[in-house]
Amino acid sequence: MDIVAVGTVALDKIETPFGSADSVLGGSATFISLSARHLCSDIGLSAVIGGDFPDEYRSVFVDRDINIDGLETIEDGKTFSWEGRYHYDLNDRDTLATHLNVLMDFDPELPEAYRDARILCLGNLDPKIHASVLRQVRSPEMVICDTMNYWIENTPDELRAMLGNVDCFIINDSEARQLAGEPNLVKAARIIQELGPRILIIKKGEHGALLFFENHVFSAPGFPLEEIYDPTGAGDAFMGGFAGYLASEEGRDLSALKSAVIFGSTTASFTVEKFGPERLLDLTPEEIEDRVAGFRSLSHIPDTTVQFNGF
Amino acid sequence: MDIVAVGTVALDKIETPFGSADSVLGGSATFISLSARHLCSDIGLSAVIGGDFPDEYRSVFVDRDINIDGLETIEDGKTFSWEGRYHYDLNDRDTLATHLNVLMDFDPELPEAYRDARILCLGNLDPKIHASVLRQVRSPEMVICDTMNYWIENTPDELRAMLGNVDCFIINDSEARQLAGEPNLVKAARIIQELGPRILIIKKGEHGALLFFENHVFSAPGFPLEEIYDPTGAGDAFMGGFAGYLASEEGRDLSALKSAVIFGSTTASFTVEKFGPERLLDLTPEEIEDRVAGFRSLSHIPDTTVQFNGF
Repeated sequence: MDIVAVGTVALDKIETPFGSADSVLGGSATFISLSARHLCSDIGLSAVIGGDFPDEYRSVFVDRDINIDGLETIEDGKTFSWEGRYHYDLNDRDTLATHLNVLMDFDPELPEAYRDARILCLGNLDPKIHASVLRQVRSPEMVICDTMNYWIENTPDELRAMLGNVDCFIINDSEARQLAGEPNLVKAARIIQELGPRILIIKKGEHGALLFFENHVFSAPGFPLEEIYDPTGAGDAFMGGFAGYLASEEGRDLSALKSAVIFGSTTASFTVEKFGPERLLDLTPEEIEDRVAGFRSLSHIPDTTVQFNGF
Repeated sequence: MDIVAVGTVALDKIETPFGSADSVLGGSATFISLSARHLCSDIGLSAVIGGDFPDEYRSVFVDRDINIDGLETIEDGKTFSWEGRYHYDLNDRDTLATHLNVLMDFDPELPEAYRDARILCLGNLDPKIHASVLRQVRSPEMVICDTMNYWIENTPDELRAMLGNVDCFIINDSEARQLAGEPNLVKAARIIQELGPRILIIKKGEHGALLFFENHVFSAPGFPLEEIYDPTGAGDAFMGGFAGYLASEEGRDLSALKSAVIFGSTTASFTVEKFGPERLLDLTPEEIEDRVAGFRSLSHIPDTTVQFNGF
């Protein structure tokens, strides 16, 4: 299997300045797999849902040939749900409630076909679950992992131990500073890389993302969007686009990683244009290529020579 | 004259997590002119100082052939002073005190040689002063202007009227949102451009800067620095590098403006490496060229083709 996405599948309640919606399809595994699917066809999803999970949402995956053999259903349980409210400028959000429900006892057992995953995507979950999944996969070419401040604060030892087995770690800037205990992002990145991940991606929301790889740094801009409806899932869509690109490309050098970051930034930038994963469902290859070209022109620095008139 | 920089020359008191200093040479005209001087030799400074201004600071300009005929001295007055404290991560700062002193009655009268300025740089000042200076210059090729939240809140009408005569407006992201009354930066940019400036640069601190020109957007990354000592003056150093590049280059198209943004980002990134304008005093052409190359590699996106495996 090219990509296995382990994470959450959720029914979210989201309030934004532009509208609210209940029971929106959400969760990290949802956004990772739907985003990766645009660049890669052989994807499996591992998550848990309750008996309340609508069949139409199940079809979202099935209709797109995303393998859901690893989607466990607890018939008498309720699906995990996140309730959040975004502020006026969409850069900040409040978590109003987190109903773990069936996620409480989630202990994924990967279907046999998943265990040969080339690329393993670990969405935000308890690092103990990540560790358990890592023991089940045989020899993944690349393990990509996300986390959040909750695990940095509450299970730092488990998180650090798990990071020793991660190739690529994707977190946001405040989480990087918190995990490293260092306000300078460049220093924080080095501290985190020393915990294990050769590749570190620091997400900065509307400001884009930084890729740290060996001694290189690459800065991907945020795409200047006029219409942002719902930032939920953008970070997971980033991971999906990143992984999807690498599944379709043999290189693992700086150039390949940079391109993967741009494809991740591209799927993330589309995701925020509509509610939930809606925009990921009707995205076309032409739209993706256009936006990748947009990223290129957005950050292209022309060759220049200058005459210095020094002091 | 290639560049005339009108703004403040100050004696600042600065506290950072790495140390504090009193009577540090500061002010917008200081950073603009010292930064521009690396790329352009014919620069005049217009500002006001008190009798307390040290001769050694005056020499900083004179020794570098920056014309200070427009530097007015009020012998029985005290020099403008800003007192600020930076937070742990250096992204936030508190203004502890602003002693306007001689700035209170500043009403610059430009020396004759200044009135033919090709590029006029208006550092943050009362928009009424900006308007007065604009009446004194004959036909500047480009007027570049900065402001701050104080003027947006307290003299919005004067600011808007003045912007009708500005070619390039440089502000930070929160000021852009505030001035436009619009949280989305792309929409805010268009609203501000409709007030007059064909060129708008939105500074985002460690996240770099956005250039809006006609229908184009360019995103310059922030340079990933490991050692940041004092962010004071970075925005003004940006303006100086931007103007200095344009003084040495005939083009005014997107390509020239992008390069100017990178040179501005370069001088700004050096400025924060030491206290006050110290780093701008020993900067070499080689260091500037190296960092410009660093910006280029930092944001370079390789050519990629990808095989789509659409839904």
